[in-house]
Amino acid sequence: MSSGAPGAPNGTPDRHQVVVAIDVGGSRMKCALVHRDGTVARIEHHPTQTARGPAAVVDTILDIAEALADTARHEGLAPVAFGLAVPGVIDEAAGVAIWSSNLGFREVPLRTLATARLGMPAVLGHDVRVGGVAEARLGAGRADRHVLFVAIGTGIAAAHVVDGTAAAGAHGAAGELGHVLVRPGGPRCGCGRAGCLEAIASAAAVARRYAELTDSTPGLSAAEVVAHATAGDPLAQQVWTEAVEALADGLAIGQTLFDVETVVLGGGLARAGAQLLDPLRAALHDRMTFHREPRLVPAALGAEAGCLGAALLALDSLEKR
Amino acid sequence: MSSGAPGAPNGTPDRHQVVVAIDVGGSRMKCALVHRDGTVARIEHHPTQTARGPAAVVDTILDIAEALADTARHEGLAPVAFGLAVPGVIDEAAGVAIWSSNLGFREVPLRTLATARLGMPAVLGHDVRVGGVAEARLGAGRADRHVLFVAIGTGIAAAHVVDGTAAAGAHGAAGELGHVLVRPGGPRCGCGRAGCLEAIASAAAVARRYAELTDSTPGLSAAEVVAHATAGDPLAQQVWTEAVEALADGLAIGQTLFDVETVVLGGGLARAGAQLLDPLRAALHDRMTFHREPRLVPAALGAEAGCLGAALLALDSLEKR
Repeated sequence: MSSGAPGAPNGTPDRHQVVVAIDVGGSRMKCALVHRDGTVARIEHHPTQTARGPAAVVDTILDIAEALADTARHEGLAPVAFGLAVPGVIDEAAGVAIWSSNLGFREVPLRTLATARLGMPAVLGHDVRVGGVAEARLGAGRADRHVLFVAIGTGIAAAHVVDGTAAAGAHGAAGELGHVLVRPGGPRCGCGRAGCLEAIASAAAVARRYAELTDSTPGLSAAEVVAHATAGDPLAQQVWTEAVEALADGLAIGQTLFDVETVVLGGGLARAGAQLLDPLRAALHDRMTFHREPRLVPAALGAEAGCLGAALLALDSLEKR
Repeated sequence: MSSGAPGAPNGTPDRHQVVVAIDVGGSRMKCALVHRDGTVARIEHHPTQTARGPAAVVDTILDIAEALADTARHEGLAPVAFGLAVPGVIDEAAGVAIWSSNLGFREVPLRTLATARLGMPAVLGHDVRVGGVAEARLGAGRADRHVLFVAIGTGIAAAHVVDGTAAAGAHGAAGELGHVLVRPGGPRCGCGRAGCLEAIASAAAVARRYAELTDSTPGLSAAEVVAHATAGDPLAQQVWTEAVEALADGLAIGQTLFDVETVVLGGGLARAGAQLLDPLRAALHDRMTFHREPRLVPAALGAEAGCLGAALLALDSLEKR
C-alpha cells in the first residue's frame, strides 16, 4: 500500500479505511463495514440469540466484529475503528452498557472488551441515539439542525439530536419518551408506573389492548390491528385512535420541551405509514398553541439506521484523534 | 488609562471592564454592572411599567442601559458589552424578541436597537434560560454538568443547561415545562389547552383554585395558601397537594427526557422552601423507576439570577470575539 495522508493510521490512504459497525437488537444484529466518506462497503445480519445469556451475546458481538475486520483486510481495506450500538441505559463516555433488559447486560464494559479483542479504537453508543444521529445527518432530518427521532416498536424511545449530536443526559438515560406520563392512572407500564406513553402506544401495547378488548389469545399483531382498523373493525379503530392520541400527547410534550424543526418517526410501528402519520399529524396539530409545529416525517434509513449511526460514532472518534 | 491586555477593547485593562446587564420582568427591571471576572459592581432596580406600552418599555430599557454605562464611565470603568434578558419567545441568534405577552413585545429587534443606541455589542437572552445559566454556573447547580432550572411563579418555565449553556430550541421556545400536559381534561391553561402543568401548579393557578374552592374574592395569594395549608386548612392542603403532585409529574417528565443531575427550583413559589421541597422531593422519588433521581435544590441566586445570567451572556460574547 502507498503511504497515506498525513495522520492516517497505519499509513493507509483514507479511501481504503473502513470502520466496523454493529447495532445489536433483541433478535438481530445489523453489521456493516463503512468507508470514511459514509458509503457502505458491506452489510451483514446475524441472529442475536439472547436466550444464550449476556456473556454469549458479548462473545458473538466480538466474533462478528473480528470476522468483519478480517473480511475488510482480505478485500484490501484497513479497519481502523469499531462502532457498537446497544439498547438500554448506556454510559457512552465510559463505554459501559449499564443496563439493557433485552440483552441481559448489567455494567458490561463493552468498549474496553472490544478494544482489547480487536486491537483498534472502539466506541459504544445507544441504539436509538445513534439511529437518531444517522437520521438527522443522513436521513429524514438532514435538512434541519434540531431533530427529534422517535422509535416506536416493542417499546418507545427518542433521541434529541442538535447539530448532528444526540443528547445522552447525565447518566446515559435521556430521551426516554416512552416513559413520559400521558394517562395518569392508565395502563401499567413495564417500568412499574401507570400511564406511560409506551404502555398505550407501543406495538406491544396496541396488540395487548386489542387482545383484551376482543378476549382473543394470542390475538393480532399491532400491524394487523392497524389493518383491521383501516378495514372498519370498530374495536381496532378504538385501540388505534387511543394509541395515536397518546402518541400525539407524547410528541406535543417533546415539542414543548425540545422545540425541534422535525420529528422523524422510525421503528416497526412507523411502517404503518399514512395510517399512522395522517391521524398523528392532525392530532399533533390540534395540540400546538404557542408552539412552532414540527414537520412529522417517516424515517428514511429503515432498519440500517442504528448500524449507520454506530459507524458515524466510530468515524467521529477518528476525527477527534 | 494604561494600555490593556492584548485584544482588550479600547485598550482598557480587563479589570476595569464591565458589562451592563438588564433582566426585564413584568413589574421590575433588575439591572447591574458586572466585572469580567463575574463580580458585581452595581445593582439597581427600576419599575417596568408595562401599561405604558411596548415602545415606552423599550425606551426605558435603553435609557437605563445608557445611564448605567455612563455611571460606569464616571467611576473609571469601561462598559464593553450589554446583556439583556426578556421573557417570552426569544430568537437569541437573531437578537429578536419574537413574542412576549407580559411586555407586549412582537418581533422587536432588541439587539439591533441596543447596539445602535449604546455603541457597544449587545446580546439578547431569554429570562429563564439566562437565569438557568447563572444558577448552573454560579448558583445551586454549579457542581454539575447537567442542570434543569425550573422557575415557578405566575407561570412555569424551565431551562435545560448542559455545560453552562441553555438549550434554546430551533425557534427560541425550548423548555416550556409549564405547558407539558399533566392532567388530560384538566383546568384550561392560558395557552389555550387544558391540563398544562402551569394551569395547576403555578402561583396564579394555586391562588385561583383556592379562591374557587372557598368561593372567595379576591382570595389568598399562593404564598398565603401554602401558609394556610401548613396551619391545617384542609382546602388549602388539598390545593397545595394537587399542585405538588402535578409539579412532581412535570419534573418526572423532565427527568425522563433530560436525565439531569440536579433540578434547581426558582421563582416566587419556590420561596415556600421546605413546604414545597419536602413533599415535592417525596412525590418525585415515588415517580422514579429506571431513572436516576436528580437532586432537587432551591435556587441560590434569588431575584438576581436573570440579571447575572444576562451579564454572563454578554461576557460570553466577549470571549467569542
